[in-house]
Amino acid sequence: MLKVISVDECINLFGNIRIVEDEEVDIDDALNRVLSTDIVSKQNLPGFNRSSVDGYALKAKDTYLCSESMPAVLCYKGEIKIGIKPEIDIEDGECVYIPTGGMMPKGADGVAMIEDCEGLKGDIVVNKSLARWENVVFEDDDVACGNLVIGSGTTINSNHAAVLSGLGKTRVRVKRRIRVGIISTGDELISPYDEQEVPKVRDINGFYLKQVLKEDGCLPNYYGIVGDDEEDLYNSVKMALDENDMVFLSGGSSAGNRDFTINIMERLGRVLFHGIAVKPGKPTLMADCHGKYIIGLPGHPLSCAVVYRFIIKKLIDSMYCRKRDELYIEGAMAQNYHKAKGREEYLPVTIKDGIVNPIYVKSSAISVIARCRGFVRIERDAEGILEGQRVEVLL
Amino acid sequence: MLKVISVDECINLFGNIRIVEDEEVDIDDALNRVLSTDIVSKQNLPGFNRSSVDGYALKAKDTYLCSESMPAVLCYKGEIKIGIKPEIDIEDGECVYIPTGGMMPKGADGVAMIEDCEGLKGDIVVNKSLARWENVVFEDDDVACGNLVIGSGTTINSNHAAVLSGLGKTRVRVKRRIRVGIISTGDELISPYDEQEVPKVRDINGFYLKQVLKEDGCLPNYYGIVGDDEEDLYNSVKMALDENDMVFLSGGSSAGNRDFTINIMERLGRVLFHGIAVKPGKPTLMADCHGKYIIGLPGHPLSCAVVYRFIIKKLIDSMYCRKRDELYIEGAMAQNYHKAKGREEYLPVTIKDGIVNPIYVKSSAISVIARCRGFVRIERDAEGILEGQRVEVLL
Repeated sequence: MLKVISVDECINLFGNIRIVEDEEVDIDDALNRVLSTDIVSKQNLPGFNRSSVDGYALKAKDTYLCSESMPAVLCYKGEIKIGIKPEIDIEDGECVYIPTGGMMPKGADGVAMIEDCEGLKGDIVVNKSLARWENVVFEDDDVACGNLVIGSGTTINSNHAAVLSGLGKTRVRVKRRIRVGIISTGDELISPYDEQEVPKVRDINGFYLKQVLKEDGCLPNYYGIVGDDEEDLYNSVKMALDENDMVFLSGGSSAGNRDFTINIMERLGRVLFHGIAVKPGKPTLMADCHGKYIIGLPGHPLSCAVVYRFIIKKLIDSMYCRKRDELYIEGAMAQNYHKAKGREEYLPVTIKDGIVNPIYVKSSAISVIARCRGFVRIERDAEGILEGQRVEVLL
Repeated sequence: MLKVISVDECINLFGNIRIVEDEEVDIDDALNRVLSTDIVSKQNLPGFNRSSVDGYALKAKDTYLCSESMPAVLCYKGEIKIGIKPEIDIEDGECVYIPTGGMMPKGADGVAMIEDCEGLKGDIVVNKSLARWENVVFEDDDVACGNLVIGSGTTINSNHAAVLSGLGKTRVRVKRRIRVGIISTGDELISPYDEQEVPKVRDINGFYLKQVLKEDGCLPNYYGIVGDDEEDLYNSVKMALDENDMVFLSGGSSAGNRDFTINIMERLGRVLFHGIAVKPGKPTLMADCHGKYIIGLPGHPLSCAVVYRFIIKKLIDSMYCRKRDELYIEGAMAQNYHKAKGREEYLPVTIKDGIVNPIYVKSSAISVIARCRGFVRIERDAEGILEGQRVEVLL
């Protein structure tokens, strides 16, 4: 009996998936990797009280009630240099020049801005009264020791690289990259590098999967095209399974060769499901082979891309323990769209000026993939979308 | 006289920037590169008339008015294999088995689905009438020869890789990568790899710029930290300028060292502007050095990131002739936000359930960069945003 499951059931399965191990990498190599521990600050930042302006560090009480008509006159004790510990302590009636970012000297509890001060025969005249700690950044204003700064499961981008370098975290623990073997199957397939002879078809899925796996931080290994022969395919899958964490088999799930894809899966492990109630993408299979996985993906390129984007990506996220924000744009449907009940559907659309137009798919995979801006998810039991209805276009 | 320009004036300047040359790369290396020519199909796709179902190819007129109670009985002439040119021609009263994706045989103009047919002593019984060309995909249904498939200026992602491989475009012309030298300046700076001694500060901008430039498809070259010394800095900038298309100098634009940054720029080329009327990020400088550029970026990490994100990224896009869609999320402001007139402002915010909260910045660069979900742009002459007002959060 062939087991067809819903998208939700499929994603629930991924809750029990094998999670990959950690490794440590340099921050320069951490871009697009998934953080496997929380980043907690081990220190206060900036780590010392500093001035937020160019001016004079002083005791705020010395400027009490002073103004242009009744300025404070303070004894100038010298200059603090940026990056150097001040050697001057401020006593009553004294001040010292401090640049933006300079470390506050002992005794000072405020900085008068340079535009509010004047020099007078070696003294400094302050024309404005100052509140205590005015223009001072405290040592833990940015980050306090013990603060959670970046959460585990975050995909590291350039902003996180900035934060990590600010904390001195030059080595970070991330999930090691998932290795994925890719096999394209079908007697009709040829390499895009080869001359096309009608009615051969170029392998699109293998090249798509290679690149999308890179985007998702995996290490793809492309094993090329295998014809519709069970033993050839078995040998290729077995080798790819030995050398990787997962094997993606594209095209091996359509009616013509589903049977021997299932046979191969059963020879190497246990089939988890034989289909997913999703449109497009129903002919998707998965087997658990002792903690490694074989995924049979539809041969039709648009179906393969949809199943990857909305289902297999979540499997990869689960293996990485990745937390991801779904990005979408809102818009209004330009026309009614009718859908049959019983299958969750991902409708390719364009969106312009807030108007969402479905792209009608015959078998025109390439033009849809090129034009499509995103997908509208329509729930399993919905019967369609009405003209003018607000929808989320998933990117 | 110091020349401070508006954000719009600055971006207009980029219209006259030097555009980088093309190079040819393999599709496997094309991810995240900017396409420098239109991709126009040189052929029809799929390139031959094919069946969209498993079934029997036949002449549609032979099924005219037929039904389960009055089926058509057709002479079975054999089987078409996928990927192989059919050698059978269909005459009146004949049919041939065809799999999904199989090439239509001569003479046939429709495919009866397998579920509407039965075998009968070597003949095939068709229980349903068929329209002409039903279940047939025409040779140019996906892409017609001469169609524009991907436009010049597109940043190549995995979807484009799929399309390119489908077209057999295994080599593509892209912009060569822009080489950017990065120098961090300031006597207070130390490397994140070194032990921090108060009041030294770790170099954040250098590490941020390295990673963000990679994200934007450039080749960053980090030259490390240079102290506040004009001759040292001149020598470093000169070397970096020789070896790259651009040099980013972070921290060399604050009050303390702006003068010698300007001197260096004038020694090597012509200063285009000394500041931008933007908050944060005003102390941003740019010089044209005979078709190469020096950019002086603010030392404050949040300012540096904002200037990169909203201004310098557009310079890079101009050099690549990149077309980019601005991504944003809409939401409602949680509170009033007051702003001074005269500077365009980029307000860091969080967004949750459609509610946008400003992050108030003192000098807390790292915590803001870590928490910030995006920025709200407030126009130059606006005085702020009202509670409840709809805003776009730029990602």
